[in-house]
Amino acid sequence: MCTEATLHRRDRSCGREPPAGLASSLVGVTEVAKRALVGRKLRSEQLGETLLPKRIALPVFASDALSSVAYAPDEIFLTLSIGGLSAYAFNWKIGIAVTLVLITVVASYRQNVHAYPSGGGDYEVATVNLGPTAGLTVGSALLVDYVLTVAVSISSGVQNAASALPWLEGHEATAASVLVILLMAINLRGTKESGSAFAIPTYLFMVAILLMGLWGYARYLFGDLPTVPSAQYDIVPESQFEQGITGVAMVFLLARAFSSGCAALTGVEAISNGVPAFKKPKSKNAATTLLLLGTLAITMLMSIIVLADLMKLRYVEDPATQLKRVSDGVLAGDAYQQDTVIGQLAKTLYSDFTPLFYFTIACTGIILVLAANTAFNGFPVLGSILARDGFLPRQLDTRGDRLTFSNGIIVLALAAIVLIQAFDAEVTKLIQLYIVGVFVSFNLSQLGMIKHWNRLLRAETDPAERSRMKRSRAVNTIGLAMTATVLVIVLLTKFLAGAWIAIVAMICVFLLMRGIGRHYDRVSQELEIDDSDVTLPSRVHAIVLVSKLHKPTMRALAYARVSRPNSLEALTVEFDPAETAKLMKQWEELAIPIPLKVVNSPYRELLRPVIRYVKELRKQGPRDIITVYIPEYVVGRWWEQLLHNQTALRLKGRLLFMPGVMVTSVPYQLSSAGRAKKKLAKPRPAPGDVRRGFRDR
Amino acid sequence: MCTEATLHRRDRSCGREPPAGLASSLVGVTEVAKRALVGRKLRSEQLGETLLPKRIALPVFASDALSSVAYAPDEIFLTLSIGGLSAYAFNWKIGIAVTLVLITVVASYRQNVHAYPSGGGDYEVATVNLGPTAGLTVGSALLVDYVLTVAVSISSGVQNAASALPWLEGHEATAASVLVILLMAINLRGTKESGSAFAIPTYLFMVAILLMGLWGYARYLFGDLPTVPSAQYDIVPESQFEQGITGVAMVFLLARAFSSGCAALTGVEAISNGVPAFKKPKSKNAATTLLLLGTLAITMLMSIIVLADLMKLRYVEDPATQLKRVSDGVLAGDAYQQDTVIGQLAKTLYSDFTPLFYFTIACTGIILVLAANTAFNGFPVLGSILARDGFLPRQLDTRGDRLTFSNGIIVLALAAIVLIQAFDAEVTKLIQLYIVGVFVSFNLSQLGMIKHWNRLLRAETDPAERSRMKRSRAVNTIGLAMTATVLVIVLLTKFLAGAWIAIVAMICVFLLMRGIGRHYDRVSQELEIDDSDVTLPSRVHAIVLVSKLHKPTMRALAYARVSRPNSLEALTVEFDPAETAKLMKQWEELAIPIPLKVVNSPYRELLRPVIRYVKELRKQGPRDIITVYIPEYVVGRWWEQLLHNQTALRLKGRLLFMPGVMVTSVPYQLSSAGRAKKKLAKPRPAPGDVRRGFRDR
Repeated sequence: MCTEATLHRRDRSCGREPPAGLASSLVGVTEVAKRALVGRKLRSEQLGETLLPKRIALPVFASDALSSVAYAPDEIFLTLSIGGLSAYAFNWKIGIAVTLVLITVVASYRQNVHAYPSGGGDYEVATVNLGPTAGLTVGSALLVDYVLTVAVSISSGVQNAASALPWLEGHEATAASVLVILLMAINLRGTKESGSAFAIPTYLFMVAILLMGLWGYARYLFGDLPTVPSAQYDIVPESQFEQGITGVAMVFLLARAFSSGCAALTGVEAISNGVPAFKKPKSKNAATTLLLLGTLAITMLMSIIVLADLMKLRYVEDPATQLKRVSDGVLAGDAYQQDTVIGQLAKTLYSDFTPLFYFTIACTGIILVLAANTAFNGFPVLGSILARDGFLPRQLDTRGDRLTFSNGIIVLALAAIVLIQAFDAEVTKLIQLYIVGVFVSFNLSQLGMIKHWNRLLRAETDPAERSRMKRSRAVNTIGLAMTATVLVIVLLTKFLAGAWIAIVAMICVFLLMRGIGRHYDRVSQELEIDDSDVTLPSRVHAIVLVSKLHKPTMRALAYARVSRPNSLEALTVEFDPAETAKLMKQWEELAIPIPLKVVNSPYRELLRPVIRYVKELRKQGPRDIITVYIPEYVVGRWWEQLLHNQTALRLKGRLLFMPGVMVTSVPYQLSSAGRAKKKLAKPRPAPGDVRRGFRDR
Repeated sequence: MCTEATLHRRDRSCGREPPAGLASSLVGVTEVAKRALVGRKLRSEQLGETLLPKRIALPVFASDALSSVAYAPDEIFLTLSIGGLSAYAFNWKIGIAVTLVLITVVASYRQNVHAYPSGGGDYEVATVNLGPTAGLTVGSALLVDYVLTVAVSISSGVQNAASALPWLEGHEATAASVLVILLMAINLRGTKESGSAFAIPTYLFMVAILLMGLWGYARYLFGDLPTVPSAQYDIVPESQFEQGITGVAMVFLLARAFSSGCAALTGVEAISNGVPAFKKPKSKNAATTLLLLGTLAITMLMSIIVLADLMKLRYVEDPATQLKRVSDGVLAGDAYQQDTVIGQLAKTLYSDFTPLFYFTIACTGIILVLAANTAFNGFPVLGSILARDGFLPRQLDTRGDRLTFSNGIIVLALAAIVLIQAFDAEVTKLIQLYIVGVFVSFNLSQLGMIKHWNRLLRAETDPAERSRMKRSRAVNTIGLAMTATVLVIVLLTKFLAGAWIAIVAMICVFLLMRGIGRHYDRVSQELEIDDSDVTLPSRVHAIVLVSKLHKPTMRALAYARVSRPNSLEALTVEFDPAETAKLMKQWEELAIPIPLKVVNSPYRELLRPVIRYVKELRKQGPRDIITVYIPEYVVGRWWEQLLHNQTALRLKGRLLFMPGVMVTSVPYQLSSAGRAKKKLAKPRPAPGDVRRGFRDR
């Protein structure tokens, strides 16, 4: 028998050898079980095998950034159209400005992935260098932006699809909402996010856009470039611009167009959150992928803008009143159907071979849906990081807690649907809310990086290393200057147009997370070990709850007996004296060697009599522990669960409030439990697994 | 130390005196606690004190039955109006037919309450005499009828209110839905259903209706009875009746009017479910109350019908097209607002003194709401009886399980709202679905009673007793003949008009309850004690789950130690080697005399590593029991609960599926738990408590 004295010796010989040397005795267990079990001794380095090579990492992390070329040009053209054709001429200059920002941001983030390879991304950079409040600000900004990524990407996807499927016109909000629900369902179910699921459509999209560009420029060189149908229209400027563009208004208009074009930058930060998923050398590979991503994004963006300019494309906010036919000066009117920029270009360039048009549109639609899916994957990743720091419920940080992930996914989807419905799936309106979050996060991240280099420089003495650090700091400083300028421009041009909604949402999320963080801090202070808990309880009094004499009760009685408490009794609540008499008779017949106590419940209550009884026991022996054994049926179907254990559940809930009481569930597995066990045994993949470097074999 | 040997002796001297003789040592406990605790020795006979005297029982059980005089006359007049004024002349004859049925039903139920005083009502009579299928049919019928009681009563209440508050016209469905939600909220909250809350409005309603009758007849005797405003109209019969009423069509029309009038019978059976709540002699008092109820219902019903006839009241389905002014032959048109029968009578009779008009309408409205509330109270009572027999979830039968009651109340309210919205709160349409259930239950009950007397007669030899039984059997036979006739008439005249919906609903409820019954039977067979469970487990291996070293963990470790298992170890899941190293160091510093085992989780999972570890232990010692100690925080606010214990909860859920494993929760009460404990301590009354004879002091 194992006494306390033997336990105190801190050896493991009490009773029988506990499974400390378990690993050596494992023979028949599968490799997987072994790895998880033995762990410490086998911290597997083969884990690297499952990580992402660059050719797969690029599409996994790039779909969000690349997909924005599907709507960023549209927004530039549309904003400029307010100033009429004279403003329109600025389109490729705006494109170049966006390109410049993109280059500095990519250069800055290459510094980030080298300095912070742990996958914490902007959140980590801001927290480490600027403190938790800055970190939390970044976290809130990114969480809100995930919602907008879903709303904007899906809306744009539906708008693009409408140029191939005219019957979609007018039902965009409904179609977009249905798509979001579909994405939600897929992610709730937990489809395995494989690299190739991203790779193929992303590469196809690149091919489609670059091919369109090449084909267009080739035809331009041969003087064969057609103009799009909308080229036959002149643009009617808004009334204040009728006399041509004046100074301040013009600057404001260009600034707004630039802000909208900066939507092309969203998603660039994704790679910095995904460094751990890269193959080694992780940081270097991530930096290379980032460079590749930047180059591709710029090429694709500029191809589209310049081609659209050459083909005299018109894309305006309200085609019915803003487009006037050059030939006869008649307005386009309500019958005019305005396709997206990619739609117009592809339709014209491939007018002789429509399959290529459909291919381009299909690729665009798919990449936009993938970009939205990115948010569904990115959310749990960010959530787990925030949870690790105690700003979100802790269970977000353990994998496979599907319930919590599910709640997050549902919240994300519902918020996106609310936005889509509120803004009628119009990308132009949604884009006003977008990118505020991203640029808040860019700024704090760059500021943090500058502080990071300053800190390192104070400690570093090697001149070569110092000059490298200074170079990095310079990159981040330029990055900060650039992103700060953009943020100011975005806030100035978009605040009233909708950005305030995003900011209010960010503040709410921030306050919520800070509240959770404070709660965890308070609890953790309350739980710290002090001297108040040193008195060891003296003895254990056990109570087995009995309603009927059946197998679960017998098992609970047997388990309670083998646990050898200092005293043991069975307790039953009497509803009906006849039933109790029957139970007592059975008890005698089976010669159960445990005294049976009956408490009466004149009002057919179960909880209160038991609680009162336990309370009374506590009063009699305040230093004792009471352990209440509750027999429970385990059933396999959810509706069966509703029919059993409800009272046990409530009783457990109540007993937990009593100090000095333990509650022991003694399960009895009914035959139907086998089904559920099988179902539970196989964990399904959770969204974001690939990004976090989690893979099941 | 308490060994198994001492326990086997089946005495109570193991360890310390267990609280068998607890009662004698109770001094400072309140009377209430004592009664619940000591129970068996004090099965209090004072319980009778809280039972209902006849003067209170009458209003408690009569509101449903009496309130139907607010719509039964309307339906009779309305149905007859289809045949024009010549059919209208039959109104008081239909009233007499309904009265006859009511008399036989009351006479029959007086037999029931004597023979079955336990409160099982029709369900018990049918189950005992005709078998469980018949009982279940009655149960389903009554459950469906509760929904209809809510829908019909509330709709009628709103229609009556509209004659005093004209702005309600056209918004009846909304107002009725709001009222149902209000009733739901009140019942969810658990307002104490006191006798006087029923008594005052019910008596006021009786006074209002009887006073109106007396005043009307008095004025008639003095030749001063005015006619109602609708008397100036002639009724346009439906096209097929334009040539006067022909044989079959006429019979059918009268039969339909009669069926609708039989709505006055609903609620008569309520007393037979409430016998236990009566003062002694229970059956005699219940029978007397039933007689009183019958007399009152008949008096009130006939008063209204005859008075309406004398005052030449017209009440038709579609006043705009069915009413033609006698003087000039012009149709009433859309402007005509048709008040209810009681509304028209009261308005005319009290035209000189409108407060009495408002009083009458207010009483009518209140009694109808009370009648609907009856369903909210009757539902849990019937539910608890069905649950006792295993046809509904068992926890419905223990009092104070608010969660289950709440679900039932919500289902009841939602179903009623669906009906109200679907039928636009029109009593005339809803009444087509009504009373099928009541009459199914009447029939099975009477049939059961006949079998009951036959059985008793076979055993009885005393001639006086035999003749009494034969008399009772005769009463029930007449009752069956009458109710069977009515049921056939109701089915014939109403099946296509809506009764089929009620029948389909009854079948669904029936199948659901039978399924639950079969499930419980299957489980109970599976759980029966046989020889398979005799092997006693050999030893207990305990595992304490550790995440951090804080107070809850320390408490769990202390409790586990004092429980002296055969072997004991602590288990932690490693997410991060640095964290684990910190934990190990702390473990050393605190010199905790329990070995700490670390399992690795490369994917940041908690569940699977633990499950696998436990599984492996099971394999090593299949006859051992493993008990897993889980430290749990107990917090007071629901949102705090979301932030804690989620993983513990899921782990417990998974471990329950493993045979031979017990799960022990060791609670640690945080300071906020105090709030919740206080809130939990005071149980709120549940709907139906008064009817079941439950009362808190």
